[in-house]
Amino acid sequence: MQGGLVVTSEDVARYVGVSQPTVSRALRDDPKVSRATKARVREAARLLGYVPSATGRALAVGRSHRIGLLLTDVENAFYPYLIAPLYRALLQAGYEMVLLAEAEEAGPIAERIVANGLDGVVLTTSTTDSALPRRLQDRGMPFVYLNRTVPAVPADSVVVDATAGYRELAGRLRELGHRRVGALLGPVNTSTGLHREAVLREALSAADLVLDETAVRRGPYDVASGWQGMREILRLTRRPSVVICGNDVVAVGALNAAAEAGVRVPREVSVVGFDDLPMAGWPVLDLATVAFDLAEMARAAVGLITDRVEGRGGPGQQQQVFSTALVQRGSLAEARGRGA
Amino acid sequence: MQGGLVVTSEDVARYVGVSQPTVSRALRDDPKVSRATKARVREAARLLGYVPSATGRALAVGRSHRIGLLLTDVENAFYPYLIAPLYRALLQAGYEMVLLAEAEEAGPIAERIVANGLDGVVLTTSTTDSALPRRLQDRGMPFVYLNRTVPAVPADSVVVDATAGYRELAGRLRELGHRRVGALLGPVNTSTGLHREAVLREALSAADLVLDETAVRRGPYDVASGWQGMREILRLTRRPSVVICGNDVVAVGALNAAAEAGVRVPREVSVVGFDDLPMAGWPVLDLATVAFDLAEMARAAVGLITDRVEGRGGPGQQQQVFSTALVQRGSLAEARGRGA
Repeated sequence: MQGGLVVTSEDVARYVGVSQPTVSRALRDDPKVSRATKARVREAARLLGYVPSATGRALAVGRSHRIGLLLTDVENAFYPYLIAPLYRALLQAGYEMVLLAEAEEAGPIAERIVANGLDGVVLTTSTTDSALPRRLQDRGMPFVYLNRTVPAVPADSVVVDATAGYRELAGRLRELGHRRVGALLGPVNTSTGLHREAVLREALSAADLVLDETAVRRGPYDVASGWQGMREILRLTRRPSVVICGNDVVAVGALNAAAEAGVRVPREVSVVGFDDLPMAGWPVLDLATVAFDLAEMARAAVGLITDRVEGRGGPGQQQQVFSTALVQRGSLAEARGRGA
Repeated sequence: MQGGLVVTSEDVARYVGVSQPTVSRALRDDPKVSRATKARVREAARLLGYVPSATGRALAVGRSHRIGLLLTDVENAFYPYLIAPLYRALLQAGYEMVLLAEAEEAGPIAERIVANGLDGVVLTTSTTDSALPRRLQDRGMPFVYLNRTVPAVPADSVVVDATAGYRELAGRLRELGHRRVGALLGPVNTSTGLHREAVLREALSAADLVLDETAVRRGPYDVASGWQGMREILRLTRRPSVVICGNDVVAVGALNAAAEAGVRVPREVSVVGFDDLPMAGWPVLDLATVAFDLAEMARAAVGLITDRVEGRGGPGQQQQVFSTALVQRGSLAEARGRGA
């Protein structure tokens, strides 16, 4: 950076006679700033040759036409199926997708998102204790939640309702004679982990079933976590006849633990996932799971964030809810032997 | 866009008394433009309040500090393992990664890359007949090849040499008694497909083995292609005892075809991949494969593109070559029965 040559937002603020935050808000077309002030700020910025940040934002329109997609777990098999439809839907709406593949939602991400001149952000891996949504809100940066939400900071969201899928599953478990039901649940600091657990318990209860608490483990939505949890479950004296997994990636970990231990699926234990990733349909996995339309959800999120960025969003929050259905495959079969 | 308010590169060119392409080149720090002209163009751009494109570029430094990663196959399990290390290495070098998840390398991508003000591009999915590298070169846009190259348009590259891994594999096949060797090769319009085929044939020949041409299929690097190719191979009267696959994703397709047909791996047929993706180590797949350091390759590509963007690259092309090794796993075992 050649500091001396760069006109700053402070210069613009001084010239117009407003505060620096007002300049920033005016240049990103924030509705809180009056039209008249916006016009004066833009004219001053143009005259002074001010560029809002090193990575740029179109002065004349106040928007960069760039939307961030924040992922803290890009190597997770789930996310490529979000990236592709999000990218395409954004492009169709006239936006570029900027992938923010961070290790976690801590650190100066909010500052970087604002400094980079993004118009808005799609959050997909937020935990309920993440400070980022509040920081984005404080900075007036539009964002939407996709799949996971942070209830303490309401915003537009696209979510999955597990109810229909889990009711079907519970009925099916009953028919197949499962009585001892284990689970590898998602993390308690994710909205999806909490929601799926609550809905699962309710659906089981409606089918006169309960989770066997000795065969319940919790952990991150990754292969290693499912693997480790299933190892522990398989060592139990009274093993469950079925293990319901927080998502397909966790279920793959569970299948790995079974393969490693020489435990046959579904003959000795049934396994069920969530998400219906393409790999669930591979004959080598043949994973029964709960499905929803992930690609359509990604497109819905693009609709919400572009509405918000372009000033079409109302004062309240929009939520789009996607329903679920059981996908029966080979990993779920009749309960037999000691676990039944 | 509010056209009337926008200062264009033509305005800057008129002010300085140079051509419009010279203005563009000057602002992206092209070495073909003299230092003096660059200084005059930048000063004029600053005075006039010119922003090089709607998505911005930092005027004062002439660089956007944004590098594109072009993927035409983002849902392929291979690419998440490139995205994460590339993103981190770019961030450390002071660059933002812009993911370009295009369906193919045709269309106005080169124009969009230039218009978006990217400093450079990492190409990972180019086919040997792609017109994009030439278009980028014509527009003076720096790029590097990562994994796949386009020999007709030389540029800096990071590639894998399959030789060491395939020599090990050929020796191992010989020891295990395999005589009938099939293959599911990658596409002939990729440098990796051509290279791996040539090196495989050479390595087999050095071990007194040859490919059984009736059991050779070619196709895209995806699950569906491996699945279909293996289906055909498993229907042969004289089946091979081992099938060597263009990459791990193709090998997963082959394992699916075997599972679907009730053919046991490795008892009835051995399967070998290439890439050593984490999934190859899953007990449910237990896939023998050829490994190299993908994360280190991604970092090497970042080194090359940032050198090029920052003017440290020499006049010739740099190529960094990564070596390979066989990873023995359960899908590769002794040849038995009719295929041996």
